[in-house]
Amino acid sequence: MVNAEKAITEGAAAFDRERPDIYGDAHPRDLLRAITEEHEHLQALANRHVASAAQFDRDQLLQLFRLAAKYEANPDRFLTPIKPLSGKLLISAFYEPSTRTRLSFESAWHRLGGDIMSITDRTTTGIAKGESLSDVAEMFNNYGDCVVLRDSNEDSVMQMMRSLRIPIINAGNGTDEHPTQAMSDLYTILKWRPALLEEKPEDRIKIGIIGVPRRMRTVRSLLKLLSRFPGMIDEVVVIHDGQDKELYSPQQRERLMKDGLKLRESTDLAAELPELDVVYINAIAWVKDDFEVMGNNLKLNSKSPLKPSAIILHPLARGDELCTSLDDTPHNWYFAQARGAVFMRMALLTCMVQRTEMVMDVL
Amino acid sequence: MVNAEKAITEGAAAFDRERPDIYGDAHPRDLLRAITEEHEHLQALANRHVASAAQFDRDQLLQLFRLAAKYEANPDRFLTPIKPLSGKLLISAFYEPSTRTRLSFESAWHRLGGDIMSITDRTTTGIAKGESLSDVAEMFNNYGDCVVLRDSNEDSVMQMMRSLRIPIINAGNGTDEHPTQAMSDLYTILKWRPALLEEKPEDRIKIGIIGVPRRMRTVRSLLKLLSRFPGMIDEVVVIHDGQDKELYSPQQRERLMKDGLKLRESTDLAAELPELDVVYINAIAWVKDDFEVMGNNLKLNSKSPLKPSAIILHPLARGDELCTSLDDTPHNWYFAQARGAVFMRMALLTCMVQRTEMVMDVL
Amino acid sequence: MVNAEKAITEGAAAFDRERPDIYGDAHPRDLLRAITEEHEHLQALANRHVASAAQFDRDQLLQLFRLAAKYEANPDRFLTPIKPLSGKLLISAFYEPSTRTRLSFESAWHRLGGDIMSITDRTTTGIAKGESLSDVAEMFNNYGDCVVLRDSNEDSVMQMMRSLRIPIINAGNGTDEHPTQAMSDLYTILKWRPALLEEKPEDRIKIGIIGVPRRMRTVRSLLKLLSRFPGMIDEVVVIHDGQDKELYSPQQRERLMKDGLKLRESTDLAAELPELDVVYINAIAWVKDDFEVMGNNLKLNSKSPLKPSAIILHPLARGDELCTSLDDTPHNWYFAQARGAVFMRMALLTCMVQRTEMVMDVL
Repeated sequence: MVNAEKAITEGAAAFDRERPDIYGDAHPRDLLRAITEEHEHLQALANRHVASAAQFDRDQLLQLFRLAAKYEANPDRFLTPIKPLSGKLLISAFYEPSTRTRLSFESAWHRLGGDIMSITDRTTTGIAKGESLSDVAEMFNNYGDCVVLRDSNEDSVMQMMRSLRIPIINAGNGTDEHPTQAMSDLYTILKWRPALLEEKPEDRIKIGIIGVPRRMRTVRSLLKLLSRFPGMIDEVVVIHDGQDKELYSPQQRERLMKDGLKLRESTDLAAELPELDVVYINAIAWVKDDFEVMGNNLKLNSKSPLKPSAIILHPLARGDELCTSLDDTPHNWYFAQARGAVFMRMALLTCMVQRTEMVMDVL
Repeated sequence: MVNAEKAITEGAAAFDRERPDIYGDAHPRDLLRAITEEHEHLQALANRHVASAAQFDRDQLLQLFRLAAKYEANPDRFLTPIKPLSGKLLISAFYEPSTRTRLSFESAWHRLGGDIMSITDRTTTGIAKGESLSDVAEMFNNYGDCVVLRDSNEDSVMQMMRSLRIPIINAGNGTDEHPTQAMSDLYTILKWRPALLEEKPEDRIKIGIIGVPRRMRTVRSLLKLLSRFPGMIDEVVVIHDGQDKELYSPQQRERLMKDGLKLRESTDLAAELPELDVVYINAIAWVKDDFEVMGNNLKLNSKSPLKPSAIILHPLARGDELCTSLDDTPHNWYFAQARGAVFMRMALLTCMVQRTEMVMDVL
Repeated sequence: MVNAEKAITEGAAAFDRERPDIYGDAHPRDLLRAITEEHEHLQALANRHVASAAQFDRDQLLQLFRLAAKYEANPDRFLTPIKPLSGKLLISAFYEPSTRTRLSFESAWHRLGGDIMSITDRTTTGIAKGESLSDVAEMFNNYGDCVVLRDSNEDSVMQMMRSLRIPIINAGNGTDEHPTQAMSDLYTILKWRPALLEEKPEDRIKIGIIGVPRRMRTVRSLLKLLSRFPGMIDEVVVIHDGQDKELYSPQQRERLMKDGLKLRESTDLAAELPELDVVYINAIAWVKDDFEVMGNNLKLNSKSPLKPSAIILHPLARGDELCTSLDDTPHNWYFAQARGAVFMRMALLTCMVQRTEMVMDVL
């Protein structure tokens, strides 16, 4: 066993702050150039909760991505005392355990200059005492300026929305949705290839989603966002292990097709991989306090027959469905995905909590 | 089941930031006018712990209410970089679970520009290792500028006070006291009817308290504060279900009567209600990890024979002793009570942590 | 039982903010004078993790102590809006329960103007989902500017160091090391007697360490730091109860001796005490979720035959191995030790997170 002193002697103490990610770290500059600034589309966000990916139209998404890219291109922008969310209070309520999403939101809020109160244990809330969610919402109205909520109970965010007079962001409600994750995913795809927005038929991409749309919230939200940009996508291939009786919830597939998304299903990952431009994998579904793992043939490793230019996305945390041998390859865009998620959330939070005029100051 | 997208489609995403509370939201302006500013009464708070409601005299309470009203009337006052508690650190120690009171204090502290370190799990502290509370207090002396403590152990706050050189606020010690809750309650009554301070005999009010003074900390603290203003009160009727052998702790009733408070007891809520101006209900007493519920006939709902102008107070969280059908009636002052609690705590914290001169800057 | 009101009536509400510690509170001024400012030695810290006490050389330690002394001499120095760590985010990860060390670090970080995200429950992290520590580290890279980690798993800090691109401080890894505690201990000794740095043979001190170097992380780290200053030390006496087969880990004793430290072992505390100038006691070793207590004869109380000028150090929390009757004697330097630890951590954090130029601004 290597103890701390031995690790130090072997030079482990030094680290390189400046080492850029060689892979998956395209500068957001190209995306900034590809989207024209039309901030009026963001004004509608100032008085809206964020519950579902379906509530954003194409124009709003593009302006949010543009703002996220602006933040990512200027990470040191806010070294002034007064920041966009100075004096604003976030109630960070993670009734379902999470570190990744919670820290992502809390980091975004802090970077914008705000303060945070965290609730990480459902049992300390009035809910444990029999308090209704609408009473909890009324309480939150008095204490903060914004709520971020994750709950294995799918219905909590809806119940709270009815009584809240401050905005709430759904950070994951049961297996239903995880809208900000999907926004981060699509933001990453567009940073990778901003030219997709020109929607030239010959440039359309094939996206493979390894997962089950019926019961994986990140997949559910992502499909809704992709259906806002059908002109960029040749097809979406849903790749699964054949275990689920129902791949989709009622009408889920039909509505996506109606919005112009071309969907196909497959159980043969190896056969599909060579044609996929984007491979989205989320084999581990975190459901309540347990998690399920998909079949053994639905893993990615350095032997997988990936298209040379393909990128891999994974919302993380990962298990062995995504092998670490892929980390140092150009396919690795999942670390960039996690990094971009902070800037994506900064963009969304800025618009939701501040008046439009101040959003203009930031842009 | 309504999922997130369905809720959004049905218009739930919009909320009205500007919708005022139609009921229970009298502007604190009237209370500001009713109390003359005499800030010298607040100077004594600068070097005092807050353990019991009994330690405040009438003049101090009036000046604290005045400062709370000033904060409530000017919620955006502190958008400057330097705020009253900038650079000050709160140790928020909730050994007994709470979200409501904890967030109320933390919100107040953040609004004043301070930072917070939270302890929400008693087992992580040295106490679990056998450390004495006086050693914990000595530790706190080094790390923060103020402590807020809630503990099911009634004695903890007293033990810590002996070694602390920074102020501590009792946020609930077993069943003994909860002084800041009582201050918020009385602040709410005075905001509702500032003219009570003129103490005209014909304007005196009847206050009903549904609870057991012996073992409910919010009731114990409130009675002590009410006894500072006997001239405003016709009588206090303690309404209970007859289950407790002792309604009062030794000498509790006698001391309140000696301070001029008129007390009466009753088990017939329906008979008392039509005459009560203020109805205070606290049927659920949260005692350690369990809670007790009072009898079925001690509930309030829209069929209760309330005096038309009566107001209802409840420290919340509530169960079914206070029906939600009362929320949209003019009787509902319990939401205003929760809102005012943040400003009440802002007032108290400002006086305790800052030197008197800086309190003057704020006023 | 004394309730809150009774405590108040007996005058307990008043406290004395200004009462200085009569014992153990020498002003850091003397230490400031004893060390010449040579800030170039601190530049190496800007891109280094802090895993082991062994990674600091004598010059770095002296400059860190000087900076700590500067902070301690000017506690109100940072009342300006812009502070050294303004806008910087700390990830405070205490997978092994702690309040003392966690609050010490969090207080230090807040005093320097930074913000904090806390993880106090290992089970909420991806680790519980099977996530690797290197993925956790990659996540931390995106969210914060510095990590403080305590884990009963000795290896975690090393695993994370490999993937981190932000600095990490080891706040206790199993029984291996606790470098910042040892730095606080040595800082305290030098504040007590800065003249030791002149290394006059006739001024050398005898240090007694009551503990087991093999398995107590605070002792392990302290011995490494003491071995940087062999010229100040006559001898270190390791005092134990004879229960451990092995007092030292392999080569531990040999390496310390090779660096010039003179070590001796003893099981007779009473015989050693009259000659000891510094008595370091750490009889309770917190090992994972349990703790062990050393033998009954290894306690200190007011009857212990201490040298009149001797000082006692204890990393705290303490049990009955260090009697409270010693608190009000001149031997009590353990409270000063805890207080100095915040300034020691402020010094270290400043150097690690800021560029060298900004460190110069602070000095």
